[in-house]
Amino acid sequence: MVGVDPGLTRCGLAVVDVEPNRRATLIDVKVIGSEPDLPLDRRLLVIADGIDAWLDQHKPDVVALERVFSQLNVSTVMGTAQASGIVIVAAARRDIPVALHTPTEVKAAVTGSGQSNKQAVGKMVAKILRLDEPPSPADAADAAALAITHGWRGAAFGSAGAAASASSPRSGTSGLTPAQRAWIAAEAKARSVKSR
Amino acid sequence: MVGVDPGLTRCGLAVVDVEPNRRATLIDVKVIGSEPDLPLDRRLLVIADGIDAWLDQHKPDVVALERVFSQLNVSTVMGTAQASGIVIVAAARRDIPVALHTPTEVKAAVTGSGQSNKQAVGKMVAKILRLDEPPSPADAADAAALAITHGWRGAAFGSAGAAASASSPRSGTSGLTPAQRAWIAAEAKARSVKSR
Repeated sequence: MVGVDPGLTRCGLAVVDVEPNRRATLIDVKVIGSEPDLPLDRRLLVIADGIDAWLDQHKPDVVALERVFSQLNVSTVMGTAQASGIVIVAAARRDIPVALHTPTEVKAAVTGSGQSNKQAVGKMVAKILRLDEPPSPADAADAAALAITHGWRGAAFGSAGAAASASSPRSGTSGLTPAQRAWIAAEAKARSVKSR
Repeated sequence: MVGVDPGLTRCGLAVVDVEPNRRATLIDVKVIGSEPDLPLDRRLLVIADGIDAWLDQHKPDVVALERVFSQLNVSTVMGTAQASGIVIVAAARRDIPVALHTPTEVKAAVTGSGQSNKQAVGKMVAKILRLDEPPSPADAADAAALAITHGWRGAAFGSAGAAASASSPRSGTSGLTPAQRAWIAAEAKARSVKSR
């Protein structure tokens, strides 16, 4: 699956293979950068062309994307939101399901705590993917973390449901094991904490 | 030229022909709507397909778009920003210049005051376009107002410069008439007022 950390200056892309036993392997990683001194339309076109090529090259079964919040990072959030819209449409045009995960969900899934910092996330991403060091820059590590998060949630709870959660909350928890329910409860608690 | 009032639930599109003497004529107007109960990726795809078809149908020389601010309308701004990113890329893919205008610039250009309300803008749009009533819904009138604003600014100051202002401030005011400089000063003042 493909994880995307959307951004206008740096858009992180990662392809991670997640096996049913949760073993995760980094297949490819890339950062699409657009020069801040280019006009906005050219910058967004760089992102659009880059994500199109990436999806055509890797043909992922799902695109996991960071959910963008308007109250965070006000100075860059508009460009990030514009880039995320472009990524979502690129996937939708290819009938690739899109799943959105909050930063807190990603931190909780990868490190066990929704309040971990970037360094801790990068360190755990490296460990999970059996790499000597985290993918660099941080946008690449974040994209890998998104793919891992989605792969693990999908593996536990069914990827169809996870993919369909692009704009709706996860459905009921019946039919899950006690461990799965406990994890959901822990994640819900993590989500209620204000994220970065 | 095409004016776009970006939005996820309603995206207003207008084609306005502006003559060198500032006479403006509405050629076509449309609102692309996406159902709020659809998944986000399907909603953005509806917008993307709609703007693609509109640009291919009308082949405008420029797309004038409302500049989205992160501090406004927090509940809907992310969808609006995502839609605007999609519109900008659709234009860039066709080598159509994109010009961004703030709501205050649009109000000032159309009504003479940067603090006018939606009703006043709609009323002046109808008057300028010689219509019995404003295009409806308001998103369509706003799209027409954006096209008028850009056409008038372009007519006064050169459309190439206006089109290139997508991500950079307008360049110097040398070579302008006193009336043009006065207008620029008035607009700069209007811009400094907090917009809606």
